[in-house]
Amino acid sequence: MARRSGRRPGNPDTREVILRAARDAFAERGFDRTSIRAIATSAGVDPALVHHYFGTKDQLFLATIDIPFDPQELLPQIAADGIDGVGERLVRTFLRVWDSPAGTAAAALFRSAMNNEWTARLLREFLETQVLRRATGLLEIDPAEAPLRSSLVASQMAGMVMVRYILRLEPLASAPPDMVVAAVGPTVQRYLTGDLGQLTGAPERPAGG
Amino acid sequence: MARRSGRRPGNPDTREVILRAARDAFAERGFDRTSIRAIATSAGVDPALVHHYFGTKDQLFLATIDIPFDPQELLPQIAADGIDGVGERLVRTFLRVWDSPAGTAAAALFRSAMNNEWTARLLREFLETQVLRRATGLLEIDPAEAPLRSSLVASQMAGMVMVRYILRLEPLASAPPDMVVAAVGPTVQRYLTGDLGQLTGAPERPAGG
Repeated sequence: MARRSGRRPGNPDTREVILRAARDAFAERGFDRTSIRAIATSAGVDPALVHHYFGTKDQLFLATIDIPFDPQELLPQIAADGIDGVGERLVRTFLRVWDSPAGTAAAALFRSAMNNEWTARLLREFLETQVLRRATGLLEIDPAEAPLRSSLVASQMAGMVMVRYILRLEPLASAPPDMVVAAVGPTVQRYLTGDLGQLTGAPERPAGG
Repeated sequence: MARRSGRRPGNPDTREVILRAARDAFAERGFDRTSIRAIATSAGVDPALVHHYFGTKDQLFLATIDIPFDPQELLPQIAADGIDGVGERLVRTFLRVWDSPAGTAAAALFRSAMNNEWTARLLREFLETQVLRRATGLLEIDPAEAPLRSSLVASQMAGMVMVRYILRLEPLASAPPDMVVAAVGPTVQRYLTGDLGQLTGAPERPAGG
């Protein structure tokens, strides 16, 4: 969050023009198919200037959706001790971020994504490319199963945001983190590593058929 | 859903005035502390007219939030075969409703609740009084544990709405219902009936202490 405070370098108009171009590009074409060069062209600036203002493509993307934490810092902490207990560590870290002032900013993004298709696309891209794909990579989850496993984790954690932080449904809204970790950690663990039945979508052939 | 089509009885203005008064009252004081009499007074009509237009307090409440399905119909179906397998039945019924045209209307309510504190309160009241409390009652879940258990279920199902129907994160957005039921049913089952650790929030006393 240090980068959010203090004086920002460069001309604020140019920064804003680049950010707008980046936001449009990421939402329209997705993170993977968007290049710094294309954003620079669309903003009418040199690509070097985009790097100068925003750093890498990852960092530029985070700036467009104004997310108040950096998954590149958090994910390695969660994954550090391997797959055992990762469900509980993920839930605990998640609660720590969302229970902090950063959570208020994240909730605003979440709200906006519900009513604005463009923001929803950015948030989906963010989850897919910056959070879920990286997390399953760090945890060395079977790439064939990783997308469904990680979108199930996303469903549980997005619902936690809805119920605890936005609808504020009790008692989950005020439950101590330890209680939430004990209840929800095993869900996340099972989604990442457990037996979920058929994961590929193809119907099972009847036995002996 | 039949009640949504065809000619509605009564003066549309009076209906609208009653609905507005009901919406304000339910959001401000909650479902339990709101009476038909108070709504009638606030709308400047006779309580009998409120009953005539909208039926019971439950039915009036459903009309205020424009929910496209009636939990009083669905919950007994889910609970009919008892606690065994209720997780899978709940997820299957949930997907059937949300994958249908009714889901589009429900998603609109969900979106609105994210950005409007009044709608959020109505949705919270709806979930608490019309869905969760009834469901745990039908399933005879320990009343001391029912609120946390049911708010955990709500968190998983609200997240399913977010990821499958609003963000449309793949592969969960397009996963066949059977696959979702196999993956998420056991989560719901565990939240309703499993060991979740400490459920009361009080710190455990050390052994022998």
